[in-house]
Amino acid sequence: MSAPDEPIRGERALIARLAEILGLHESVRGPVGFGDDMAPIDPSLPAWLWACDQLSDGVDFESARHAWRDIGYKAMAVNLSDAAAMAAEPVAALCAVTLHEQLDPAAALELLAGVHDAARHFGCRLVGGDTNSWKAPTVITVTLAARCPAGAAPVTRAGARPGDQVWLTGPLGGSILGRHLHPQPRVREAIEIARRLHPHAMIDISDGLAIDLYHILDASGCGAALEQSRVEGVIHPDAHQLAAKTGRSPLEHALFDGEDFELIVVLPPDDASEAETLGLHRIGTIEPGPPQARLLRPDGSDAPLPRRGWEHFRGPSGGSQARSGGS
Amino acid sequence: MSAPDEPIRGERALIARLAEILGLHESVRGPVGFGDDMAPIDPSLPAWLWACDQLSDGVDFESARHAWRDIGYKAMAVNLSDAAAMAAEPVAALCAVTLHEQLDPAAALELLAGVHDAARHFGCRLVGGDTNSWKAPTVITVTLAARCPAGAAPVTRAGARPGDQVWLTGPLGGSILGRHLHPQPRVREAIEIARRLHPHAMIDISDGLAIDLYHILDASGCGAALEQSRVEGVIHPDAHQLAAKTGRSPLEHALFDGEDFELIVVLPPDDASEAETLGLHRIGTIEPGPPQARLLRPDGSDAPLPRRGWEHFRGPSGGSQARSGGS
Repeated sequence: MSAPDEPIRGERALIARLAEILGLHESVRGPVGFGDDMAPIDPSLPAWLWACDQLSDGVDFESARHAWRDIGYKAMAVNLSDAAAMAAEPVAALCAVTLHEQLDPAAALELLAGVHDAARHFGCRLVGGDTNSWKAPTVITVTLAARCPAGAAPVTRAGARPGDQVWLTGPLGGSILGRHLHPQPRVREAIEIARRLHPHAMIDISDGLAIDLYHILDASGCGAALEQSRVEGVIHPDAHQLAAKTGRSPLEHALFDGEDFELIVVLPPDDASEAETLGLHRIGTIEPGPPQARLLRPDGSDAPLPRRGWEHFRGPSGGSQARSGGS
Repeated sequence: MSAPDEPIRGERALIARLAEILGLHESVRGPVGFGDDMAPIDPSLPAWLWACDQLSDGVDFESARHAWRDIGYKAMAVNLSDAAAMAAEPVAALCAVTLHEQLDPAAALELLAGVHDAARHFGCRLVGGDTNSWKAPTVITVTLAARCPAGAAPVTRAGARPGDQVWLTGPLGGSILGRHLHPQPRVREAIEIARRLHPHAMIDISDGLAIDLYHILDASGCGAALEQSRVEGVIHPDAHQLAAKTGRSPLEHALFDGEDFELIVVLPPDDASEAETLGLHRIGTIEPGPPQARLLRPDGSDAPLPRRGWEHFRGPSGGSQARSGGS
C-alpha cells in the first residue's frame, strides 16, 4: 500500500490505488482479481464476465491514416481479445462513440460497421450504445459481455506455478507494419485451450510479451525464464522486416512490441504434447521466487528481462514499442 | 427507411440508420427496442439489461468549473437514471476514462471516487474499468448492468396507449443552475412505480420534457396532450430563477431544459389514485394519432408542442436547453 501523498505513476499504480480506496478486495471480485482482463458482472451470474476498452484518435488509432472500418474493427477486436484471455465466449457488446463534430456521418457508419464486422465474425451481437459529438478527436468505447463455456471457470492471470511452462499461440513483433489494425483475437483458440488443456494462467499480448508476462508473474507471485532460442523461433516475419529499418534486433521487437493479440498461456508440463498438437509454441518456464523474468541465452548465460512496454501515463518505457500512434 | 445517399441528421437518425445496416430488428432485441435506455444483454438472461453513457469535458461537464468528484458522480448518475427509466435495479458498473495527460492523479482519483459515491448510494458495485490518457479533454464512459426485480419485465418507451395518463416524478426546469451536477436518479421511485402501478411506458428526462416525451410517442405510435396548467404546477423553483435572467417563461424552461433526470411515467387511468399516493404529478394524456404532442392552454386553445431539446450533431434546436456546457 502506497502512502497517501506519494505521486501516482502509471496506469497500474493508479488502478491499484483506486482498488485500495474503493475497497475492491478479493471478496468482492471472487476468483477474478482486480486488474484481470474482464470482471465478473455479479456473483449471481458466475459464468458471465464483462470488460470495456476505450480507444482514442491519435493514441490507439490515427484517423488520418487508418480506414474508419479498420478502426471500428480494432475497437471491437481488442475487447474480444480480453475475452480470449479469460477463455470466455463473447456474447454481446455495447459501443459508445464521441465523434469529432466535423466527421462525415458516412465515416461514422463505417466505424460502427467495422465494430459490427468484428463482433459478427466472433459470434457476438452488437446490441446498443451511445452516440455523441464534440470538437476534439474521436473516442470509441466498446463494452463486451462474455460467458464461460458450461462447467468452465474463467482463466485468470493469477494461477501460474513454478514448473509450469509458458506457451504462445502465435508469432510476435512488428505488428505496427499493419497487423495491429486488423488483429485476430484468439477467441476460438482460447476455448479449445480451456477445453483440451489445463491452463493455469492466460493473458493477451496488448502491451508486449515482456510486460504482459510480468502481469502474470505479478498476479501469480512467481518468476519466469524465457529461452532466447525458443522465442527466436516464434518471431513474426514483420519483426524481421521492421528490424531492418529500426536497427534493433527481431528478438527485441518480439519481446517489446505491443498489439500482437496472441495469448501467453501457462500450462502444467503434462499438457505439453497436447499443446503442441494445438499448435502452441513453448518459450519458457515458470520459476519460484519474486516476479522477475530472465532471458536464457544460447551460451547458457542469462539476463534480466526488462519490464518494458507501453503504458498510459508513462508512455513507452523503452524504445521499441509498436503502439499505433506512438511512433 | 431513408435513401442511401441522404445526409444523416442528428443522433436519432444516425442510430436509426445504424439499426437498418446492422439488421437490429425486434427479433434480435426482444421486447426492448433499439433506442431504449438500456439493452438486453442476452436472451438467456431475461431480467438483465445494460447501457453505457460517454461524457466529455466541455460537452457534458466543464472541468474548469466543476469539481471532479461531482463530474464522476454525474457520469454514474446518468447511467443509474437509464436503469430507473426501465424500472431495473442497478447492480454493477464498469468505468472507462481517457484522462487529459496533464490531469493531476489526485483529480483522477476524485473523479473515480465520485463514480463510486453515486454507485454505492444506489446499491451498485463498481467492478472494473479501463484507464488511458491523451492530450485532448477528458472522456469518461460508464457501463451499467441492471436487473429487473423478480417477475417484473423492463418498462420500455413503446407501451403508451390512447387514454393513458402522463405523469412526472418531480418538478422540472433550470437544472443548469446546479442540479444538473448532482442529479438524483429516480431508481427507488421507479422500482416502487413498477411494483405498485402498471406503467405502460417510461423515460428519464435527460434532453428535456418535450423531446423525451416525443421519444415515447415515436416508440408507441401515438400522440399526447399536455395541460399547461398542470405542467405549470410542476415547475422547479430553479426554472423561475433562471427565467428571471433569460427572459423566457418558467414554462418554457420546464418543457425544454435538459438534465432534470425525473421520469415521465405513462399509466393507465386506473392507476391515478395510487400514483397520487406515490407523489407523482399528472401533466397530460396520451391520444390516438400520429406522434404529435400539443399543449392545452388554460383558455381552451391548443398549440403544437415543438420537438425541441438537446441533440448531439444538431446541437440545441431551440434557445432554452440547459445542457451543461451548452450555454
